[in-house]
Amino acid sequence: MEAADAPAGSRGTRRGARPGSAPGYASSSAPGVPGGGTGAGGTGDGSAGTARRARSPRAPYRRLSVEERRAELLRAALELFSRHAPEEVSLDDVAEAAGASRPLVYRYFPGGKQQLYEAALGSAAAELSLRFVEPLTGPPTARLGVVLDRYFSFVDEHAAGYAALLRGGSVAETARTDAIVDGVRRSAYRRIMEHMMVSEAGPRLALLVRSWISVVETAALSWLDEGRQIPQPELRDLLVDQFVAMFAAAAVRDRQCATVLRSFVSEEDDRGTGARLIAGVAEVLGSHGS
Amino acid sequence: MEAADAPAGSRGTRRGARPGSAPGYASSSAPGVPGGGTGAGGTGDGSAGTARRARSPRAPYRRLSVEERRAELLRAALELFSRHAPEEVSLDDVAEAAGASRPLVYRYFPGGKQQLYEAALGSAAAELSLRFVEPLTGPPTARLGVVLDRYFSFVDEHAAGYAALLRGGSVAETARTDAIVDGVRRSAYRRIMEHMMVSEAGPRLALLVRSWISVVETAALSWLDEGRQIPQPELRDLLVDQFVAMFAAAAVRDRQCATVLRSFVSEEDDRGTGARLIAGVAEVLGSHGS
Repeated sequence: MEAADAPAGSRGTRRGARPGSAPGYASSSAPGVPGGGTGAGGTGDGSAGTARRARSPRAPYRRLSVEERRAELLRAALELFSRHAPEEVSLDDVAEAAGASRPLVYRYFPGGKQQLYEAALGSAAAELSLRFVEPLTGPPTARLGVVLDRYFSFVDEHAAGYAALLRGGSVAETARTDAIVDGVRRSAYRRIMEHMMVSEAGPRLALLVRSWISVVETAALSWLDEGRQIPQPELRDLLVDQFVAMFAAAAVRDRQCATVLRSFVSEEDDRGTGARLIAGVAEVLGSHGS
Repeated sequence: MEAADAPAGSRGTRRGARPGSAPGYASSSAPGVPGGGTGAGGTGDGSAGTARRARSPRAPYRRLSVEERRAELLRAALELFSRHAPEEVSLDDVAEAAGASRPLVYRYFPGGKQQLYEAALGSAAAELSLRFVEPLTGPPTARLGVVLDRYFSFVDEHAAGYAALLRGGSVAETARTDAIVDGVRRSAYRRIMEHMMVSEAGPRLALLVRSWISVVETAALSWLDEGRQIPQPELRDLLVDQFVAMFAAAAVRDRQCATVLRSFVSEEDDRGTGARLIAGVAEVLGSHGS
């Protein structure tokens, strides 16, 4: 288990500290927080805290606003929940990683670990959804590739937590956590429709986009499960191809899918991905007598 | 809420009654079971059981073996869990639907509702997996279509329970229920590999098949969520096309996928689905200048 290694309020938390907000009522009674960016090192001498590990000595008093303190606790929680399944993380772990006391954590998150988990998940979901934002210009398959790269970075950074969450069966999974996950899916869905200039999707186009999102999730989970056997750039290109191929299959049966696909393909640099894919498939199938 | 309406040991339960097995130790102390097919009617005089409804009068004593009794309870549970989310079903509902007493249900399922739910789920999973069995002859896309029809019948029959289960977030969801769901996915995966004559799938072929299975699940859930807007036969054909299209896209990049796809296509009646799809896609894209 690792301690948080980024300074408070830095990247990785969407509910970041708001400088200048009211001083935290909690900070006077809580241990201070080690200075930002020093990592988990230190001399490791002090000792209260979790049963199994020594706690570092109280760091110099540092006044944090309520928002700053909350962001710091959240950041520590997110870091731990990213690297471990929810079952493996205790409230004491979070307190220790944030250099805070257990009572302080409870003051900010009276619901304890479950509340922290859901808040961390919400924060991660917001971060992930931001990665879906991409300008509406350039070849659509290139845009898709860029977003997929960012998505896989996220999956990589939050590997254990991501896998535990999407694989399900965790005691920390509730209707609320599922709603958060669904929110990310809906966000991905909306972005894709935006890039396709679709304001109202019929049932077949909607199903197509939802299906592809599930393919991406399946790919991400398999990628983690199988020890990242398929290199990430190849996986990205494969998923882009799957998008085009699935779209093409749907377009044969559905007018809206066909219209959107044509417009999509016309924006490609070389009218490329669709045509290249068809040529490639024809080649594969052309030699099927062998 | 409806009472079970099929006679004991009939279709719908894989752990069906074994005629001639030992008489149940439970039957002597438990209320009898109403004769098959009479529903929940009755004069409503005898009154133990659920708080909100009167119980039908004790039916003529009927001796059931342990296995028969267990199968009957399971069948009643499965029927209820198929039509309602786990949260909406009480142990009393199951007891009533099976014409049994609450203590009797607890005797067979000491873990109460959760155990009943998991047993019913296991029974449904076994039933679903059996629907994946299909002879290894004939055009592969036709075989896939037959199995998809059976799958969608299952989804239709177990609509509420299926949706609640796959959507997640239910309190009844545990690592065990997820393992059961994963077992069904693995079973589908193995069947597909069997039909493709693949004894050892590389990571790209494995990912392809897993991805398509997730597309089918997404389609089933969307189908239920959207009030079955897309007719089931169309959905089946679309999913078969998606299978071929996704396979084709993967085949362009992966030798094993290409080999398997060629063999697959060569078994088609008219070398048809792949070629038809490519022609259709080319047509859609051919007019993209318009």
